[in-house]
Amino acid sequence: MTKDGKEMKWTRKDLLSLEELSREEIEMILQTADSFKEVSSREIKKVPALRGKTIANLFFESSTRTRTSFELAAKRLSADIINFSSAGSSTSKGENLRDTARNIEAMQIDTIVMRHSSSGSAEYLARSLKAGVVNAGDGTHEHPTQGLLDLFTIRGRKKKFEGLNVCLVGDILHSRVARSNIWGLKKLGAKVTLCGPPTLIPKEIENLGVEISYDLDSVLPKQDVLNILRIQLERQSHAFFPSIREYAAEYGISNERMKKAKKDVMVMHPGPVNRGVELSGEVADGEQSVILEQVTNGVAVRMAVLFLTTLVERG
Amino acid sequence: MTKDGKEMKWTRKDLLSLEELSREEIEMILQTADSFKEVSSREIKKVPALRGKTIANLFFESSTRTRTSFELAAKRLSADIINFSSAGSSTSKGENLRDTARNIEAMQIDTIVMRHSSSGSAEYLARSLKAGVVNAGDGTHEHPTQGLLDLFTIRGRKKKFEGLNVCLVGDILHSRVARSNIWGLKKLGAKVTLCGPPTLIPKEIENLGVEISYDLDSVLPKQDVLNILRIQLERQSHAFFPSIREYAAEYGISNERMKKAKKDVMVMHPGPVNRGVELSGEVADGEQSVILEQVTNGVAVRMAVLFLTTLVERG
Amino acid sequence: MTKDGKEMKWTRKDLLSLEELSREEIEMILQTADSFKEVSSREIKKVPALRGKTIANLFFESSTRTRTSFELAAKRLSADIINFSSAGSSTSKGENLRDTARNIEAMQIDTIVMRHSSSGSAEYLARSLKAGVVNAGDGTHEHPTQGLLDLFTIRGRKKKFEGLNVCLVGDILHSRVARSNIWGLKKLGAKVTLCGPPTLIPKEIENLGVEISYDLDSVLPKQDVLNILRIQLERQSHAFFPSIREYAAEYGISNERMKKAKKDVMVMHPGPVNRGVELSGEVADGEQSVILEQVTNGVAVRMAVLFLTTLVERG
Repeated sequence: MTKDGKEMKWTRKDLLSLEELSREEIEMILQTADSFKEVSSREIKKVPALRGKTIANLFFESSTRTRTSFELAAKRLSADIINFSSAGSSTSKGENLRDTARNIEAMQIDTIVMRHSSSGSAEYLARSLKAGVVNAGDGTHEHPTQGLLDLFTIRGRKKKFEGLNVCLVGDILHSRVARSNIWGLKKLGAKVTLCGPPTLIPKEIENLGVEISYDLDSVLPKQDVLNILRIQLERQSHAFFPSIREYAAEYGISNERMKKAKKDVMVMHPGPVNRGVELSGEVADGEQSVILEQVTNGVAVRMAVLFLTTLVERG
Repeated sequence: MTKDGKEMKWTRKDLLSLEELSREEIEMILQTADSFKEVSSREIKKVPALRGKTIANLFFESSTRTRTSFELAAKRLSADIINFSSAGSSTSKGENLRDTARNIEAMQIDTIVMRHSSSGSAEYLARSLKAGVVNAGDGTHEHPTQGLLDLFTIRGRKKKFEGLNVCLVGDILHSRVARSNIWGLKKLGAKVTLCGPPTLIPKEIENLGVEISYDLDSVLPKQDVLNILRIQLERQSHAFFPSIREYAAEYGISNERMKKAKKDVMVMHPGPVNRGVELSGEVADGEQSVILEQVTNGVAVRMAVLFLTTLVERG
Repeated sequence: MTKDGKEMKWTRKDLLSLEELSREEIEMILQTADSFKEVSSREIKKVPALRGKTIANLFFESSTRTRTSFELAAKRLSADIINFSSAGSSTSKGENLRDTARNIEAMQIDTIVMRHSSSGSAEYLARSLKAGVVNAGDGTHEHPTQGLLDLFTIRGRKKKFEGLNVCLVGDILHSRVARSNIWGLKKLGAKVTLCGPPTLIPKEIENLGVEISYDLDSVLPKQDVLNILRIQLERQSHAFFPSIREYAAEYGISNERMKKAKKDVMVMHPGPVNRGVELSGEVADGEQSVILEQVTNGVAVRMAVLFLTTLVERG
């Protein structure tokens, strides 16, 4: 139900970004996820909602966690799921992507879940297919289901977003998770601060209505939520910061630093955690961490997304 | 029903080749595929026909498309399916094949779908197992389900085979798809022409009752169906033709060349297409192309084959 | 039912070793496997016992056979099963294992089936998770489901274990299969002899109540069961024996050597067999071999283990 009491209807065959969703659409997904979260806590974790539907996991970048989360979501909805491994493909990527996807679609797949290293690839695919496309991460653009599960987890603990202070910490530059969080949090009314080394925060991102800080200790005390981004250690050679040790000293969340934070601050991380770099082991496993709750919620949110997109009336 | 009005009964636990099938058996598979094609177009694309049966995909050569097509076929019949990856197997191939297959069979698998680089391997396996064996491509011998889906697609458009002119274009020498097409088309009454560079057409193949041509432009005008074979670019080093550019000029199907063809000619290709080599992008995506229809029909035909072989009474 | 007529109740969420199981627990698994063996021989090889439960296969060492056996067991119980491939993981193993497993658990997986190269890893995991853990082989420690399927196969032929002479032949030193067999056989009352080259039999293993022999021909005549262990040819460089030919001459089971054995001796092997090394092809395929029966029984035993551990009341 929307605010004015009318029942809302889902109209998208694709989930490509949080940028394109309205506040009402985001809330509809979160409400749908509420009921599916309950399913996963039952003795029999399965509903027949997508029986006879076919979902394809098409991952051009490897990702055990996200792929598995979608696979479980599909199975708990009783859909059939097919995993495509695209390693070792020798043809040119652009052509290959479209041809591969059209072949998959021709097998009467209902929804394709795709991860790809090129920003915009999910949208490109969605335009050329009748099948639904769920973006499971496209380059540095967006990772909308991660954004949605972060919203779902915050909402579960803090109940409302209005007036909530959320700080995204770390590598904003390369992070599709950050971008989906920013769009989602802003639409739901939270105040968003980005904090990290100047080299890892693009200047023009201020235009999205977020605050920027390079000094974690100064912004930390007022935050209700810390969403700590993963440092991609393999990108270290680009020298975005002097050393891992210095990064950890300036932006790593340690027990010591946590003393400056609110008692009820939520610590989030999309995983996998580099313990001792962006987060100490104690904080990752501590009482304020909701990292594993995020994983649990990820299945529920993905069930909601697959449910809504797969059952939409197709044009 | 056969022509004399008696109901036919399927009697084979294996599908090894189109060479060994009678015209009636081929027609029975195509008729069974008719009803399964309808299943894949339903809202709920699933029937309980093989519930509690187990199918194993045993692919010694990688093939995402064919493997996926069989996997979907099995799932839409409600069978359980197990994928074996056989990469990294260190034991000698001959021994390994039999031992691997007997181990799989011992887990009470009903039907093994196998792709293998050795011609005759599927037949070898079928003789030593009680489980059914479906040949998903054995060396340069046959790829019977591809042949059947090609027949099914032609039949869907042209209704009958008698008097139909079908031309297979390209690398006949290495093509198991060509061999299965020849057997199937001849049994159903079509006239078959093989066209390609002399180095890629084995002379003795004339004995199968086909015509041979090295000049595509001269045979093109009378064809009702063009089945364009894939050029295996990785075999280029063997120098079966001077260059890809020359191959494309002589045997590639371009928009220009299509002007010489019948208005209602069908353009087929087993995929994946090397755009600009054996087929231009415009033709591949054009109105006469049935390439994606072939992919759709592949699932229906494989459902029919798995259904018939798995439910046959075993000796 | 236990001997004193009371109904026994399964109380373990994990299956980590045969060492920790009581005789009654082992018998309970074997009795449960009896009924599941019947399921796999039905036309419809499936029961709804674990519908809506989720099993995860987490294999840090590759193993097509064991992984497939567990996958089939889960599917025939109607559970959902997820396969994790852990190849290419770059983080330090110790941390990674716990974090990976806790992430999997957070997706509300009921039971994790794990193979890992470190002895004790399954127990380590079981202690930190609410999810059940089934050890599918941990280093050189134990491979309890292999031990159980060996017991199940012996019991199927020999009916009782009291007074039965069982000889494990070959590489005892590196064999987790040997260790699980020793614990299980001793608990059920069999007499166990270990036979192999002195370099491959650890001295202190006598403390488990087994006999040791380095001379196969002298102990062979009195054995009721020969369980032939696999020689890991890749470990040959360590020079535990002079050459494969000499190993085969001393400890390989040939037709010639079989003449010295009892008429009704059972020949077992966990597979895959190195034909001509630890076992001749004739013996492997001969009348006394129960190797494929072991494979069949493996599915039934794993169904029993997944059934009992997954449905136990969790603390």
